[in-house]
Amino acid sequence: MAKKSAPVQSIRDAFRVVPGEFDIAKVDPAGTPVGPADKAAAAADVALVGKRLDELQEALYAEGSGGGRRRVLLVLQGLDTSGKGGTIRHVAGLVNPQGLHIASFKKPTAAELRHDFLWRIRRQVPEPGRIGVFDRSHYEDVLVARVDKLVPAAEWRKRYELINAFEAELAEGGVTVVKCFLHISPERQKERLVARLEDPLKRWKYNPHDIEVRAKFSQYLLAYQDALTKCSTPAGPWFAIPSDRKWYRNWAVARILLETLEEVAPVYPEPSYDPVVELARLRDADPLR
Amino acid sequence: MAKKSAPVQSIRDAFRVVPGEFDIAKVDPAGTPVGPADKAAAAADVALVGKRLDELQEALYAEGSGGGRRRVLLVLQGLDTSGKGGTIRHVAGLVNPQGLHIASFKKPTAAELRHDFLWRIRRQVPEPGRIGVFDRSHYEDVLVARVDKLVPAAEWRKRYELINAFEAELAEGGVTVVKCFLHISPERQKERLVARLEDPLKRWKYNPHDIEVRAKFSQYLLAYQDALTKCSTPAGPWFAIPSDRKWYRNWAVARILLETLEEVAPVYPEPSYDPVVELARLRDADPLR
Repeated sequence: MAKKSAPVQSIRDAFRVVPGEFDIAKVDPAGTPVGPADKAAAAADVALVGKRLDELQEALYAEGSGGGRRRVLLVLQGLDTSGKGGTIRHVAGLVNPQGLHIASFKKPTAAELRHDFLWRIRRQVPEPGRIGVFDRSHYEDVLVARVDKLVPAAEWRKRYELINAFEAELAEGGVTVVKCFLHISPERQKERLVARLEDPLKRWKYNPHDIEVRAKFSQYLLAYQDALTKCSTPAGPWFAIPSDRKWYRNWAVARILLETLEEVAPVYPEPSYDPVVELARLRDADPLR
Repeated sequence: MAKKSAPVQSIRDAFRVVPGEFDIAKVDPAGTPVGPADKAAAAADVALVGKRLDELQEALYAEGSGGGRRRVLLVLQGLDTSGKGGTIRHVAGLVNPQGLHIASFKKPTAAELRHDFLWRIRRQVPEPGRIGVFDRSHYEDVLVARVDKLVPAAEWRKRYELINAFEAELAEGGVTVVKCFLHISPERQKERLVARLEDPLKRWKYNPHDIEVRAKFSQYLLAYQDALTKCSTPAGPWFAIPSDRKWYRNWAVARILLETLEEVAPVYPEPSYDPVVELARLRDADPLR
C-alpha cells in the first residue's frame, strides 16, 4: 500500500505577504520557492488548474445568476514589463470570458481626478458571479502618487487606511479580494524593454517615459514594501510573485486564483422550479409536438 | 508546378442574409453548407483561426492604444439554447480576454425602460481597439417586443430604421458590426432543454418561461425573418448560422469573425519615439547601470 502523501501545501501561504515579516528585498524575482521546477511541469499543472478553474467559475457564475452576491477580484500590480498583461492573457484566459470583468487603470483622466481616488475603482468592481481582474488599481495611488509626489505625503499616507476600509467593505459585500505583486528584477526589466524596442510588433507597448520610471526602481520597491505590508489584510491579502520567469509567474497566479475559488466554494443554486414537473411539461405538453 | 488552387470562398458570403433573397425557412439548422464536414475537421480549422484571430486582435488593440478608433462588434442572437453562451466561450475564448468587451442584455430593468431602447446598448459599445460581443442586443426590441406585444406595432415597426441609423452611426465611428443569428430547430431546442433539466449542473440555465417562449417558435422565426432582412445592411450585415451542431456553429462564427478582422486589417501604430534613440538611452544611459 502506497504511503499517504503529505497534504498539499497552500500555495498562497508560500507567497503571502505577512506584515511585520515581509521584506521585499528578500524575495528573489527569479526564484521558484514552491511548485514546478521548469516550464514543462508548470504548463502541465496550469492545464489542470485551468480545467478546475473553469468549473469553479461556472459554478460562481451560476450562483450569481441565482441571486448570490459573491465574486472574486484579482488585483495585479507590478512595475513595467512585470507581466500584468501576460498574466491576464494566460491566467484569465483559462476561463470563460463571459464570466470575467477586466479593468485597466491608466493615468487618471481630468474627470477622474475630480473625484476621490477610489471613485473610478468602485465603478469597476465585478458584479456578483464574476471574476474581476484589475490591471493596476487603487494601489497606484500609494505608488506613483508617492514616488512622483503627485499629492502631499500627508495625503497618500492616509490612503492605506482608506484602502483597507474599502477592501473590508468589498469583503462585506461578497467580494473576495486577492492581490498579486509581480516582482521582477531590474535586469529582467531591461531585457524586456530592449525586446519591446527591437520587435516592431512590440514597440506600441513601449513609452520613453518607461526609462524615467525605471530610474526610480528602488523608490518604487520602497513604496511597494509599504503598500504590501500596510494593506495585506485578511479581507485583502497580498501575494508577492517572483516574476522574472513568465511560466512561474503564470503558474503561481493561476494556483493562487484556484485556491481562492476553492475556498469561496461557489454553489449551484437550487432551481426555483421542480425539474420533474418541467420535464413532464416538455415531454407531455410540448407546445410544438 | 502545382495548379493554383481556387481562391478561398468567402465564408461570410455563404451565410450572408441578402434582403429580398433570404428565406429563413430555407436555412437548414442542421446544415453544413460550406467548410468542415465533421467535428474533428472543424476543431482543426478553429485552432488555425484562433491563432490568426489572436494576432489580429493584438494588432487591433495596439492600433487602438495608438489613437486608432476602430473596433469590432459581434452581435449574437438566437432562440433559447441556440448557443450564444457557448459561442462566446468557444469563439471569444480564442483571443486575449483583455481585448474583449462582452455584454449580455437581459429583460430591461425599470431604469432602462425609462430610456429609449438603444440607450442601454450605446453604453456597451466597445471602446477603440476592442472586440465587443453582444449576447442578445437591440434586436430583442423587434423580436420579443413584437411577439409579446410589449409595445404597439407602430412602435416596433419604426425600430428597424432606428436600428439601421444606429448601426450606420457606429460604422461612421469606426465600429465594424457583424451580426450572427444562431438558427436551431425546435427538435434540437427540445433536446437541449431536456438536457438542462436532467443535469443538476445545467438547471440554473433553465427557466419555466422557456416553454412559453418555445410555444411561439414560429412567431419568433417570422420576427427574425423581418429583422434580418430589414437590417442586413452594408454597415451591419446579418449572417444566418446553422446551429444544431455546436461544432459547426462555432466554426462558422469563428471564420466570420476572422474574415471581418482580416478586412479591418488593423495596423500596429508607428511609434511616437525613435526606437534607435531609445535603445541607446537604455543601453548607454541606463539609470540602473
